[in-house]
Amino acid sequence: MLSFNCDYVAGAHPEVLKKLVETNMEFLEGYGEDIYCKSAQDKIKKACKCENADIYFLTGGTQANSVIISSLLNSYEGVISADTGHINGHEAGAIEYTGHKVITLPNYDGKIYADEIENYLKMFYSNDSHSHMVFPGMVYISYPTEYGTLYSKNELEKISEICMTYKIPFFIDGARLGYGLMSKQSDLTLPDIAKLCDVFYIGGTKVGALCGEAIVFTRNNTPKHFLTKIKQHGALLAKGRLLGVQFDALFSNNLYFDISKHAIEMAEKLIHILNEKGYRFFIKSPTNQQFVILDNKKMNELRKNVSFCFWEKYDEDHSVVRFATSWSTKEEDIESLKSFL
Amino acid sequence: MLSFNCDYVAGAHPEVLKKLVETNMEFLEGYGEDIYCKSAQDKIKKACKCENADIYFLTGGTQANSVIISSLLNSYEGVISADTGHINGHEAGAIEYTGHKVITLPNYDGKIYADEIENYLKMFYSNDSHSHMVFPGMVYISYPTEYGTLYSKNELEKISEICMTYKIPFFIDGARLGYGLMSKQSDLTLPDIAKLCDVFYIGGTKVGALCGEAIVFTRNNTPKHFLTKIKQHGALLAKGRLLGVQFDALFSNNLYFDISKHAIEMAEKLIHILNEKGYRFFIKSPTNQQFVILDNKKMNELRKNVSFCFWEKYDEDHSVVRFATSWSTKEEDIESLKSFL
Amino acid sequence: MLSFNCDYVAGAHPEVLKKLVETNMEFLEGYGEDIYCKSAQDKIKKACKCENADIYFLTGGTQANSVIISSLLNSYEGVISADTGHINGHEAGAIEYTGHKVITLPNYDGKIYADEIENYLKMFYSNDSHSHMVFPGMVYISYPTEYGTLYSKNELEKISEICMTYKIPFFIDGARLGYGLMSKQSDLTLPDIAKLCDVFYIGGTKVGALCGEAIVFTRNNTPKHFLTKIKQHGALLAKGRLLGVQFDALFSNNLYFDISKHAIEMAEKLIHILNEKGYRFFIKSPTNQQFVILDNKKMNELRKNVSFCFWEKYDEDHSVVRFATSWSTKEEDIESLKSFL
Amino acid sequence: MLSFNCDYVAGAHPEVLKKLVETNMEFLEGYGEDIYCKSAQDKIKKACKCENADIYFLTGGTQANSVIISSLLNSYEGVISADTGHINGHEAGAIEYTGHKVITLPNYDGKIYADEIENYLKMFYSNDSHSHMVFPGMVYISYPTEYGTLYSKNELEKISEICMTYKIPFFIDGARLGYGLMSKQSDLTLPDIAKLCDVFYIGGTKVGALCGEAIVFTRNNTPKHFLTKIKQHGALLAKGRLLGVQFDALFSNNLYFDISKHAIEMAEKLIHILNEKGYRFFIKSPTNQQFVILDNKKMNELRKNVSFCFWEKYDEDHSVVRFATSWSTKEEDIESLKSFL
Repeated sequence: MLSFNCDYVAGAHPEVLKKLVETNMEFLEGYGEDIYCKSAQDKIKKACKCENADIYFLTGGTQANSVIISSLLNSYEGVISADTGHINGHEAGAIEYTGHKVITLPNYDGKIYADEIENYLKMFYSNDSHSHMVFPGMVYISYPTEYGTLYSKNELEKISEICMTYKIPFFIDGARLGYGLMSKQSDLTLPDIAKLCDVFYIGGTKVGALCGEAIVFTRNNTPKHFLTKIKQHGALLAKGRLLGVQFDALFSNNLYFDISKHAIEMAEKLIHILNEKGYRFFIKSPTNQQFVILDNKKMNELRKNVSFCFWEKYDEDHSVVRFATSWSTKEEDIESLKSFL
Repeated sequence: MLSFNCDYVAGAHPEVLKKLVETNMEFLEGYGEDIYCKSAQDKIKKACKCENADIYFLTGGTQANSVIISSLLNSYEGVISADTGHINGHEAGAIEYTGHKVITLPNYDGKIYADEIENYLKMFYSNDSHSHMVFPGMVYISYPTEYGTLYSKNELEKISEICMTYKIPFFIDGARLGYGLMSKQSDLTLPDIAKLCDVFYIGGTKVGALCGEAIVFTRNNTPKHFLTKIKQHGALLAKGRLLGVQFDALFSNNLYFDISKHAIEMAEKLIHILNEKGYRFFIKSPTNQQFVILDNKKMNELRKNVSFCFWEKYDEDHSVVRFATSWSTKEEDIESLKSFL
Repeated sequence: MLSFNCDYVAGAHPEVLKKLVETNMEFLEGYGEDIYCKSAQDKIKKACKCENADIYFLTGGTQANSVIISSLLNSYEGVISADTGHINGHEAGAIEYTGHKVITLPNYDGKIYADEIENYLKMFYSNDSHSHMVFPGMVYISYPTEYGTLYSKNELEKISEICMTYKIPFFIDGARLGYGLMSKQSDLTLPDIAKLCDVFYIGGTKVGALCGEAIVFTRNNTPKHFLTKIKQHGALLAKGRLLGVQFDALFSNNLYFDISKHAIEMAEKLIHILNEKGYRFFIKSPTNQQFVILDNKKMNELRKNVSFCFWEKYDEDHSVVRFATSWSTKEEDIESLKSFL
Repeated sequence: MLSFNCDYVAGAHPEVLKKLVETNMEFLEGYGEDIYCKSAQDKIKKACKCENADIYFLTGGTQANSVIISSLLNSYEGVISADTGHINGHEAGAIEYTGHKVITLPNYDGKIYADEIENYLKMFYSNDSHSHMVFPGMVYISYPTEYGTLYSKNELEKISEICMTYKIPFFIDGARLGYGLMSKQSDLTLPDIAKLCDVFYIGGTKVGALCGEAIVFTRNNTPKHFLTKIKQHGALLAKGRLLGVQFDALFSNNLYFDISKHAIEMAEKLIHILNEKGYRFFIKSPTNQQFVILDNKKMNELRKNVSFCFWEKYDEDHSVVRFATSWSTKEEDIESLKSFL
């Protein structure tokens, strides 16, 4: 069975695993105070070209979103997000569970735009009864988005500006950050990301690690007693080394970027084949997730040999499905897929 | 200054106040265990023609919504509401503060329809990854809606049916219930309301009381240890008599309905005048709230003599404003308003 | 039946009720923006001799505690309280419901002492792993305490000092504040209270009002967007006048203090009679609550004519019961009670 | 530097790591649906001799406590625990963060006893105003306790009985379960644990895994939509395999028990040496944690060569310190330690 179901089908990248094995019997400090966490933090700081970065490691994306958002918001505030934002639809209400509203704006291919954010903020503050409403206390976007699309540098600069004007943090969910940055369509670098937002995270779970996301507060703006908040969320690993070692490997020898680039190349080959074979795309994604409209009959047939992800109903006879490549996708997998398409 | 600002400008209806005065020096049980609470509960039960009703008194609408919704939902559930629902926009995130998502559907003049609710529920349960999403655990509507519009009996029956099919409670926010039921356009009675939903409340704050909403669980379906939940929300009055006495008065001699009817009559007169004078309505409301589009110049001029509520911007030169009548609106107020319009 | 059950058996003091009646038909602003709220705020400010006081009105004690504590604490903080503190035992977990721990210290006749608070804080910060613990973020006491006992000025000064040293707010629950200040044993005035703590409230529910507590932030230290927090808790009354008018009456003509003094005089008479008749006191209380040890047989007999409050089991044959006086206790009630004792 | 600081100083047991390496490039289902999770669940079920066990994997202890307790409690309930319970003191208020009170009973060497639990429950339900209090909805203990002590089978049976009588779940925190069961002083087996309680977890983080705790609901009593609750807490790993593979290894070839036994043997050697050298024990612990009273001078000297854990001040001149052995402690480490003591 070919697997294009998602980007977390395999374990860790071999280099990452190797480092876990090599360091396994060392006796290290707990709770993220070990030398590998420190080393990984240094390497990430350098990769971000961000002197004022504070870096923390958590195990997964929903956890990172929940801890970051609830730590940055005041209790009377909510977070602005696209209605298609992961925090709005696919995290089981984790944000609301911490007491905060997700304030949704309509998405355009998964994205929200600076002018609509600004309109919302203006409208909010001009409303006489806004003290009876949830204060917009943060802007959340995903890069790439949940539809695999990308913001341009200019688009992010504009959002960044508005956030600064309204003094609310700008947070970028980078669960698939590598696949975004390595897309040929991206005009952004990791240092750009660090410069434009107040906090973001570098996804490991979907990009080479067994688990782990590296949270980056970009302006020494870690919320007070953040470690205690992490503990309170049940998100503090006793063996923080598990995350430190993995990110130390991912940020050695350009590994994180190389393996991300590989996934993009595989996606490009896939796009080429799909185009060649006349498939219709639901959305144009320049990253590792490809959304295709399939005839239901074709879909069911294909399922026999290929695992992919049903996304949503398109019409009575068609469905939207997702094919995802990742660092672990091999060229021969793409070739095999071609034969089934 | 004429006051059409809202429906809570005056104190209590004189009959309500009279009863508070008469009973003031009686020594009564605390926490809603007094004879007037019991008497009010009996009278409301009768008015609802609902043998299985359990009745509780809380002080206000947001409090009632927060206590009811958080008590009925499981922690993995959210509440379905119109995007214009009071709980979604004007309660400062009170529902999210208790850990639950407000799941919004688009409104049509403030209403949501059974078929769209059903579609949402079907879509939810057919989604492969719905266990990563917030379960729809309740349907919330307001009667009348936040725009003063009314559901028909048939519309509520259909919503009721779907809720039964999906085994989720149907909750009606009746902050202005009297003004809805007494509208000429209403084809519903209080017993109908009690029959159609699982829980609702009868608004007192806006209909003759100083404060107070009467919660009605219609099928002996009070959540376990509801009193403790009320206490936990800081919503349990030591002198529960304050609420009991007021509702006892409101449900004596048809008072609640009579004073609601009066407000509707005043609204009708107002509509007549507005029509006569050629004003444009933003929305057609058959209840005590009237939404009118005013030229900004006219609006500012009118403000000198009349207090009303700015609702929202209509376009560069026009605004939507609200005039509200209530039990305390007098005919001469309407006449005076006429002279200024 | 004589009623010494609690201090909220009657309605409002006649002067308070009179003012509600007089102002009833005035058309006033909602949500606490009316002239009576403003007037009451001014009068309370003066009575507190506290230029920097910010004043808000809420309906009850548990609500006040929940809103104040959750608004002042950071999410990683808890509140220090006596284990007998009302917030710890008798508010259905309202504080924990907002996400915060009640950190308990052992009580001495209902009180906690500065040196033990200091020890706790020292111990906490000297603990290597305190970042895995709940930060002590506030000190809560009740004046008078839940056992009717009183702190001396000196005792409060010491607590105040420690709170300043550790930069955590000092909060005084004054649900029965009047009965504390008017006790002959009290060496404190209202201005003293305002000077010593960061926030406190003046109880109305148990001292002459139908409902209502006046929150006083003593150093213009109202938490940001406090009104929104109040709304979020479902604690914002549409007809804020209900609270404003009552406190306006209570703080006119020394009423609050006079009626409190009356309750104390009644309590003194009661103590005298109990002593005369050879009853044993469980605790020496100089305020309006008296805790007496009764033989169970005697207790059951007394119940036929007098309502009082069973407090706790003393031993197999004896019980601790509470007699409470209040502004509404009459001298003839005390005389009648005497005949039954 | 010798390391007796804690039981999570090393990575994974070599057998566990080996299995992670072997399975690394297999393409597996996400979110705990993979074959290794299933295999581990089967093996644990067998080891527990518990047909009705439902098994879930989470990453750490605080997370497990938070997810389990908040999923089992109703919103008006709290959890009974020893005041020394991990959830009460060392989890940064994670339980309160989910809205629930930790109801503490005094500990005896870290334990609570059935009769005191029963007394509490009796007292609670006999209290007239218990509806104003937090309902005791669960009993939490740790095996071994936070002081390394053990409950006897008889003691647990009695607690179990009371929980059944009062129909509240009995939950055992087994973060160090292996070290408890393998203690010579233990008269309990894993099947005994499964039989006696409603839910417990088998600690992996401290017993051979990189991370991971196996939650066991012993009577097919998994709370409804538990996966959604896990997701809502940010506790659902995309690569659930990380936990499944590790527990699959730990429950193959008796590994979990063998490595636990090794730690106990190392602890026994340590106790022997400490006794021989005349050290005073703070508490008698039959498990892998040893609490010793050291002269401060000696303590500071020892620190130069040995890492151990400062526990608490004993008196001006002495401190309580903890030495912990684990699966990774070697005999030569004990020998080296001996030379420094």
